[in-house]
Amino acid sequence: MTTDEDTAIDSEWLHPPAVAVREVVQRAVAEDLLPLGDLTGTLLGVQSVNARFVARSSGRLAGTRCAAEAYAQVDPQVAVRWEVTEGAEVSPGETLGTVTGPLRSVVTAERTALNFLGHLSGVATLTARYVAEAALGGDAHIWDTRKTIPGLRSVEKAAVRAGGGRNHRGNLSDWLLIKDNHLGGISITEAVTLARDRWPGRTVHVECDTLEQVVEAVAANADALLLDNMEPDLVVRCVEVARGSGNAAAPLLEVSGGIDLDTVAAYSGTGVDQISVGAITNSAPVLDIGLDL
Amino acid sequence: MTTDEDTAIDSEWLHPPAVAVREVVQRAVAEDLLPLGDLTGTLLGVQSVNARFVARSSGRLAGTRCAAEAYAQVDPQVAVRWEVTEGAEVSPGETLGTVTGPLRSVVTAERTALNFLGHLSGVATLTARYVAEAALGGDAHIWDTRKTIPGLRSVEKAAVRAGGGRNHRGNLSDWLLIKDNHLGGISITEAVTLARDRWPGRTVHVECDTLEQVVEAVAANADALLLDNMEPDLVVRCVEVARGSGNAAAPLLEVSGGIDLDTVAAYSGTGVDQISVGAITNSAPVLDIGLDL
Amino acid sequence: MTTDEDTAIDSEWLHPPAVAVREVVQRAVAEDLLPLGDLTGTLLGVQSVNARFVARSSGRLAGTRCAAEAYAQVDPQVAVRWEVTEGAEVSPGETLGTVTGPLRSVVTAERTALNFLGHLSGVATLTARYVAEAALGGDAHIWDTRKTIPGLRSVEKAAVRAGGGRNHRGNLSDWLLIKDNHLGGISITEAVTLARDRWPGRTVHVECDTLEQVVEAVAANADALLLDNMEPDLVVRCVEVARGSGNAAAPLLEVSGGIDLDTVAAYSGTGVDQISVGAITNSAPVLDIGLDL
Amino acid sequence: MTTDEDTAIDSEWLHPPAVAVREVVQRAVAEDLLPLGDLTGTLLGVQSVNARFVARSSGRLAGTRCAAEAYAQVDPQVAVRWEVTEGAEVSPGETLGTVTGPLRSVVTAERTALNFLGHLSGVATLTARYVAEAALGGDAHIWDTRKTIPGLRSVEKAAVRAGGGRNHRGNLSDWLLIKDNHLGGISITEAVTLARDRWPGRTVHVECDTLEQVVEAVAANADALLLDNMEPDLVVRCVEVARGSGNAAAPLLEVSGGIDLDTVAAYSGTGVDQISVGAITNSAPVLDIGLDL
Amino acid sequence: MTTDEDTAIDSEWLHPPAVAVREVVQRAVAEDLLPLGDLTGTLLGVQSVNARFVARSSGRLAGTRCAAEAYAQVDPQVAVRWEVTEGAEVSPGETLGTVTGPLRSVVTAERTALNFLGHLSGVATLTARYVAEAALGGDAHIWDTRKTIPGLRSVEKAAVRAGGGRNHRGNLSDWLLIKDNHLGGISITEAVTLARDRWPGRTVHVECDTLEQVVEAVAANADALLLDNMEPDLVVRCVEVARGSGNAAAPLLEVSGGIDLDTVAAYSGTGVDQISVGAITNSAPVLDIGLDL
Amino acid sequence: MTTDEDTAIDSEWLHPPAVAVREVVQRAVAEDLLPLGDLTGTLLGVQSVNARFVARSSGRLAGTRCAAEAYAQVDPQVAVRWEVTEGAEVSPGETLGTVTGPLRSVVTAERTALNFLGHLSGVATLTARYVAEAALGGDAHIWDTRKTIPGLRSVEKAAVRAGGGRNHRGNLSDWLLIKDNHLGGISITEAVTLARDRWPGRTVHVECDTLEQVVEAVAANADALLLDNMEPDLVVRCVEVARGSGNAAAPLLEVSGGIDLDTVAAYSGTGVDQISVGAITNSAPVLDIGLDL
Repeated sequence: MTTDEDTAIDSEWLHPPAVAVREVVQRAVAEDLLPLGDLTGTLLGVQSVNARFVARSSGRLAGTRCAAEAYAQVDPQVAVRWEVTEGAEVSPGETLGTVTGPLRSVVTAERTALNFLGHLSGVATLTARYVAEAALGGDAHIWDTRKTIPGLRSVEKAAVRAGGGRNHRGNLSDWLLIKDNHLGGISITEAVTLARDRWPGRTVHVECDTLEQVVEAVAANADALLLDNMEPDLVVRCVEVARGSGNAAAPLLEVSGGIDLDTVAAYSGTGVDQISVGAITNSAPVLDIGLDL
Repeated sequence: MTTDEDTAIDSEWLHPPAVAVREVVQRAVAEDLLPLGDLTGTLLGVQSVNARFVARSSGRLAGTRCAAEAYAQVDPQVAVRWEVTEGAEVSPGETLGTVTGPLRSVVTAERTALNFLGHLSGVATLTARYVAEAALGGDAHIWDTRKTIPGLRSVEKAAVRAGGGRNHRGNLSDWLLIKDNHLGGISITEAVTLARDRWPGRTVHVECDTLEQVVEAVAANADALLLDNMEPDLVVRCVEVARGSGNAAAPLLEVSGGIDLDTVAAYSGTGVDQISVGAITNSAPVLDIGLDL
Repeated sequence: MTTDEDTAIDSEWLHPPAVAVREVVQRAVAEDLLPLGDLTGTLLGVQSVNARFVARSSGRLAGTRCAAEAYAQVDPQVAVRWEVTEGAEVSPGETLGTVTGPLRSVVTAERTALNFLGHLSGVATLTARYVAEAALGGDAHIWDTRKTIPGLRSVEKAAVRAGGGRNHRGNLSDWLLIKDNHLGGISITEAVTLARDRWPGRTVHVECDTLEQVVEAVAANADALLLDNMEPDLVVRCVEVARGSGNAAAPLLEVSGGIDLDTVAAYSGTGVDQISVGAITNSAPVLDIGLDL
Repeated sequence: MTTDEDTAIDSEWLHPPAVAVREVVQRAVAEDLLPLGDLTGTLLGVQSVNARFVARSSGRLAGTRCAAEAYAQVDPQVAVRWEVTEGAEVSPGETLGTVTGPLRSVVTAERTALNFLGHLSGVATLTARYVAEAALGGDAHIWDTRKTIPGLRSVEKAAVRAGGGRNHRGNLSDWLLIKDNHLGGISITEAVTLARDRWPGRTVHVECDTLEQVVEAVAANADALLLDNMEPDLVVRCVEVARGSGNAAAPLLEVSGGIDLDTVAAYSGTGVDQISVGAITNSAPVLDIGLDL
Repeated sequence: MTTDEDTAIDSEWLHPPAVAVREVVQRAVAEDLLPLGDLTGTLLGVQSVNARFVARSSGRLAGTRCAAEAYAQVDPQVAVRWEVTEGAEVSPGETLGTVTGPLRSVVTAERTALNFLGHLSGVATLTARYVAEAALGGDAHIWDTRKTIPGLRSVEKAAVRAGGGRNHRGNLSDWLLIKDNHLGGISITEAVTLARDRWPGRTVHVECDTLEQVVEAVAANADALLLDNMEPDLVVRCVEVARGSGNAAAPLLEVSGGIDLDTVAAYSGTGVDQISVGAITNSAPVLDIGLDL
Repeated sequence: MTTDEDTAIDSEWLHPPAVAVREVVQRAVAEDLLPLGDLTGTLLGVQSVNARFVARSSGRLAGTRCAAEAYAQVDPQVAVRWEVTEGAEVSPGETLGTVTGPLRSVVTAERTALNFLGHLSGVATLTARYVAEAALGGDAHIWDTRKTIPGLRSVEKAAVRAGGGRNHRGNLSDWLLIKDNHLGGISITEAVTLARDRWPGRTVHVECDTLEQVVEAVAANADALLLDNMEPDLVVRCVEVARGSGNAAAPLLEVSGGIDLDTVAAYSGTGVDQISVGAITNSAPVLDIGLDL
């Protein structure tokens, strides 16, 4: 049984920080309204109306705080109330929330609100599909990447959480990920050692393209390995090597590289912890949501 | 024959304004680097290296100014040179441009630059596919919509141009588009009349869901009609009515509503001027582009 | 008879978008108060006082949202209530609105609020004078231009509406206006054709300095003509040519170029639709408004 | 004799700080170009052209740094060179400077550059007229006020200097000016005493509407008196009282209140130090300057 | 006897302007939360809790508006109430104020709020110590300088007031201070004369390193002298010279240069008006304040 | 032997990201110059001069990029060249770098540049003192905290690196640190488990106030322990417990809580990895650096 309070707790962590919401919405409102405002809206009156956000297809809802903030910034007289919480599964025809306020303002902020809802729910929905497919093969989490739409990192990563995924590092400043481009001038062992010295406490993550690199990275005591562009069979062998004989300090294991909805279950079955997918943020089609007056 | 100068002229209009490029890049660089910068990059030296932007799949290139600006903001010592111009068709394995500078900086700005290139080329590529399909059926242009990713309106609309599409209104302040949500409280005729009075000189565009509305909008002398969610047959009839008997003031005719790559040619064959597609901006998968050192 | 609701509808479209109001006020408040705040205000107490915005001369009121926002940003405890709506005709001595709150805050934001009211009412007032003069000669609207004070485009164009004028394009991104500087490298016909191809749906406006250009622009099917620096007689002939024999697609006709309060009626009598006047935004003297405690 | 170096020294102080120039120009460029850029400009090529800023009427030049910055922000390839320095007297037909660069960019930034030049030269020109008139009556300087156009305080106050005027306090944080609205709750003597205690070192300025107040303010040892809304005769008497018998600590004397070009000489003849005029910043008509290709 | 209203009046001037508070807090909140928010906070529920700001050592409280604003920006549901006013003397264990709201939000904004309280109270506390020591020797005020932490000028100068100090000029734009670096190319007399001409009404302040310079500056009628790096004996002589024989226009006298808590009383005893100390803003240790749940 | 290239590599990672430098400097320049600029500077000419940054006491240099950027933003004609690299030990009288450019600009940006150099070198210097003391007792690193001056997180953390310290998490979004305030509603074991599930890959850090908590946190497999407010003896016992019998997955061990220069060596001798000190960022006195013309 889940109480209401539990639900509040659970959904709260799916939202982006308030400061991020205010900033992305401010830019979006400005880009749609300046310099003259909503010309067509001026043809309308300011009588109070009710409108409903309605899902037109199935998916996961995300972006509710952004949509509400869009209305707040356009006209504080508009009230937005959600009937479904962030991260919920929604069905075609389902009412997601209501918008009440002057007709003119309800119409003016409609597209901005829907653009947030549509894009972020699209991210959550695609994430949820990967999560569901991965669950068919094993226990791996779906991880996002830094392949996000520029300027939306914070809200897209929240949408990934709303879709049941998890967040890889937020940016280059969170933790270290030593990739092939780095290894041109430094070995894995040297890199991990230097990383531990310069950035103690932080996750040191190593991209491995071969089993040999896995061996080296494990020996170097990396916190996490990114097994990149490997077939599932090779991943299984890398997992065995990395987990060794009950290695208490076994690194977190991530796979990535061209994994799609067809292959994600197979990778999930390899025993890795994380499957990272750039597509959930940079290639998610919009979830179709409308506003019905 | 096309001279170099002609090419410069032609490609110049495909770029976003410089002020927009600076602003979106500044946000993207900040979100990837603050507060501590690129931790992993600190493991590397500052020896000069050469890298190449390489296409991994086919498509249309867009976002070159944004990618170059990302490098300029991270480290002005890095030089970016393009071998292919904005809007060009690119093939897998093709070198798009080169990046020369300190290894550390080349790696630090890589993902930000690629995020711009990938997303905006994705928009251009999907646009180009619609353009190509539409051309099989008729002469209609592909138009974007206001269904853009929040904060990227300016650069995405430029990417649509790079893909051979055209830009519908930039925002609510450009021209009037009277939609069904507006028509709850005002008739088409009243709306067009009021629009002419309040906003002279601007395009007055009317969404029509029925033939009757087309008749009314033409009579009201609207500049453009949006034929929404109609089957191609009905569109053909609306076109005949709107163009009438050589009506010199015939409105521009747009269709929209769930048109996809399979149906766009049929709509193009109806004789409309524009086919607007929200998907080219809000549902375009990334174009796969990498940086090879 | 005008109901209250009608008035609300009518005055609402005279205001700038809320996002513009917040931004211009934030800059104004910062520039008047940083770094140390209102030194003189610190000599005062925080007892609640009432003050009144009072017109010192006749004119049109504009800028009420900006003035209220200035108080809101300086001290949310201050309440501003308007007794006269945006766009109203005001007389010397008339109370425009009231300000209630702590004495210190009422005084601190006074000048910022008055600077907005004074300048924007000045714009509205000069616009209204042109509107009134033009009405003596004919039916032409008064149009503003892009000759606005830098940074205030959005709020000044709203003030023009408050004065009974209409807004020409908001900026370079709204529609096309092909001017003499453009015609150095391209003919009118070529320009209109290219404009239609690249920017379908947008108003294509052509500046004409001669009757020959009018003929060419009409033949090219331009949406609007700007008859620049012509004597009224020549304008009349251009109007005849442009409107031709009941030409259903007759372009909108605008005159501009050194038209002042003495000559505006004559130009209004030529039959043009619009008279554009840069002076209403860039040369409007302030309307004298004070705050009486 | 004036050497070149002397001239450089003299004109440098007439400019606003670089940080202010960058910020006001950024806003102005953004408001004229977003979201889609200069549509009409896309019809043109990028061949290099030369253009000239030309005065169309007589006045004082100001705003050269802002105009150059507008071009720099739109396209760094454009070079702007001034033939006349900030603050110079200019005549109709005189070339003020040249602009060299791609045709498209020269045209795109033209209006923004001219809006700065026109408005700020308008401020300088009106200031210079007051300065000239005041010089006919006596030695008083012309002072600006805080009655500036919101957001342009810094550049307008620089333009006042370019016109030969002087800057009153920059904002509420510079020095104390005790006005009638303050004197509702505190006497002049108390106010000056408290001001000295709380804000030592700062100018303490007192508005006086009567001779009695002058006596009190002088006794309180105010640094400056603002003689508000007095006839010249009364001003003369106040000056005598304030300067007393060779009072070494005589306050600076300012007059204000409805002084116009007709009366400024008379006030200058009263012996005051400063004549402040709100009109030079908030009611200055634009100086007509054009860009000739 | 002090009434409540008096207290309100007295403490109000100790706060920074609201616009400064909003801006510094926005940056601080963003730098602590972007891109992903408070990860650890997500482990907690949203049940309402009460917490108390508690002083851990003795000092002067400052920064209450900033701390409250930090909570307001993170979560408007959190209420902050102060039990002690800005500028109050606080003791170890004393409750300064209470914070009530969802546990998660109370914890998330804790460090940002405490960083403001700790730093600004640190500034106030060190200021108060200098004020107390100076009072042992004479009547001199403690003045701050422009040696502030970059970006915090406005709030640090308010904290100086909260500590009983006074604010020297806010920045380079307030008044003139002619220093040794300036005197390389211009004499004191020339500088003061030029300053009076160019910047009438403003404080003209002259740094003097020798008695000869004092004589020159007094003769030039400077408003204030900065006696820099002098022993107290020499300061006494300078004071005598500057104040002369009851010189009504005697300048304000400031000493500065390596004055610390051990020597400040001696300098206060010299008869100067102001003792400026850079350390109170750039070297103030934090005041230890905690948040107890 | 250290080559020049090695030095470049080594010092590069001590700097803050360029985007952070530009932003903090922009705010600092604006706060010192708006609205009117450097009044006193206008008394000077623009002849080129040379000046030197000179250390007045011993310490570690930091903030060179910020100081150079301050000059670049005030006047791009000024050239700054460093003779000593970021992080270097400097002695009284040592020349740190040179500034060449117009006298006026050299003086105008002096204080802003010195404020950055002084504060950030102060942070580096205090850090270096802790580092040196800690080295006397053992091998522990000095770690900073989130107790930074609001708005300066990025540049202060870089200064800590310049002083030989290391950076703890950058903000709440980097990794998880479960503190006593969190443990009110959740146990250590529950918290770590939930953290692993929600935020895989991230460092999970647990504050322990007792040996029992250390046992629980180790059993829960935390990545790092913060031993808070313990005497060295107790720390030694905690270290033994945490490192256990060659525990391959032994957590990183941090101590904090009132550790000062007198006690840091003793804590370093306990065998912990990190000693975190809030004072190095929030209580560092300025390093005295001057600019000599």
